[in-house]
Amino acid sequence: MQVTNQVLRYENGTLQVIEDLIVTEYPITIILNEQEFATLVCSPEHIEELVIGFLASEGVISRYEDIKELQVIETTGKAFVTTHQVNKLNEMFHSKRYVTSCCGKSRQSFYFYNDARTVKPIQKTAARISVEDCFRLMQMMQTSSTIFQDTGGVHNAALCDSNGIIVARTDIGRHNALDKIYGYCLKHAISLEDKVIVFSGRISSEVLLKVAKIKCGIVLSKSAPTELALRLAEELGITAVGFIRNQALNIYTHPERIITPQFNG
Amino acid sequence: MQVTNQVLRYENGTLQVIEDLIVTEYPITIILNEQEFATLVCSPEHIEELVIGFLASEGVISRYEDIKELQVIETTGKAFVTTHQVNKLNEMFHSKRYVTSCCGKSRQSFYFYNDARTVKPIQKTAARISVEDCFRLMQMMQTSSTIFQDTGGVHNAALCDSNGIIVARTDIGRHNALDKIYGYCLKHAISLEDKVIVFSGRISSEVLLKVAKIKCGIVLSKSAPTELALRLAEELGITAVGFIRNQALNIYTHPERIITPQFNG
Repeated sequence: MQVTNQVLRYENGTLQVIEDLIVTEYPITIILNEQEFATLVCSPEHIEELVIGFLASEGVISRYEDIKELQVIETTGKAFVTTHQVNKLNEMFHSKRYVTSCCGKSRQSFYFYNDARTVKPIQKTAARISVEDCFRLMQMMQTSSTIFQDTGGVHNAALCDSNGIIVARTDIGRHNALDKIYGYCLKHAISLEDKVIVFSGRISSEVLLKVAKIKCGIVLSKSAPTELALRLAEELGITAVGFIRNQALNIYTHPERIITPQFNG
Repeated sequence: MQVTNQVLRYENGTLQVIEDLIVTEYPITIILNEQEFATLVCSPEHIEELVIGFLASEGVISRYEDIKELQVIETTGKAFVTTHQVNKLNEMFHSKRYVTSCCGKSRQSFYFYNDARTVKPIQKTAARISVEDCFRLMQMMQTSSTIFQDTGGVHNAALCDSNGIIVARTDIGRHNALDKIYGYCLKHAISLEDKVIVFSGRISSEVLLKVAKIKCGIVLSKSAPTELALRLAEELGITAVGFIRNQALNIYTHPERIITPQFNG
């Protein structure tokens, strides 16, 4: 995950050679039913979860049991996957753009066919968390990631409930970190009803769609969302909270899931 | 590029509705020689440059003159491109992984065929800059980007020489910001020999490869590089400087292009 490199450090007007921790990158090619499907550049950890999450995210599988065989060969950077059913529809439309309406409204929020096909609105769940939990979970995720502190080069995602972190994953790719969480949830059949996803990066439309695919109702970020992500969050029933910093935060959509002192008198 | 949204802001124990600037996202589909080629999710500015840079980056064109016609239809999010020659080889290998050796060495640095085919080592140029210029150019880029300050949701890239910024581009996608710079350079036939690329994001292998494709010998970043990016930088003759913060920086590769007080006595 990290290697030590010699680096020329310039500081306070002088130059010296220091030992520095550098984050690694690892290209992995997914061979799906004997055909090359995609190459992901990722952090070399939890590759199996990543492959499962990516395939689910792309609509190739809808549950872990759809996979007949999965073998990761780390030395060659290949993951061989066989599914029980070969989804012809998905093969045809893989990554094809397809602007459609979302949730019956006539907005052009979806730009990939697979997203429009696989993403469903989140049902109103009982899951609610307090603003104090938002601060606490964000801090727990950040302090749990030693890689981030050492190298400054990765994104963190964590699946949490109000008790704390259930699983945390790190990757140089923002989407990979979320796909690893997704793969973990599918493999272990985690119920998402009362869960929260905490993410270190920006809430882009792609991030928001991943959260929807994982079927989680709340996403917390220390960064900014995009306008398209917020439109999707509104339509898909997801609570998006951003800029969680210094005991302050912004609630962008579906605030009914966030318990604030003022709202409760 | 930005819209105003009403947001629930929690701060100092109270909740209030504030007006917030939110960065926008825009999906654009490139139709290349009457066939759907790719969909990019980007910031809706300088789309033409983005398309030119992306096509060059993918090896579809090697110079601006290879494009016969380019029309961006903003309302439908489509860019229609016709090239003088249809590159069959590229169509076959588009995005296919192809592990090969780089610069005659037997390292597995390239994982896409197009990169191995299009990226050449940077010739040793006369371009050298001082550490003071590194600090100054990074600060100039950051202060020039009002979007970043307002919304915290974008990446910045700038093409500079020691006099300052020649062109700066902003995008929600890290690679898009660099592709816009690339497109600008190709369209205006900018000589890259004495130029520097300043980038707000991490130096990943993909970022490093873009810098090599643009044919720039120096890349400056305020963030961390990855190990694969540094290996490529070493082999491709690119000077990579990272963690430019608080009057300190790390020189990772080819330090001969950076003028430091100590090196000059």
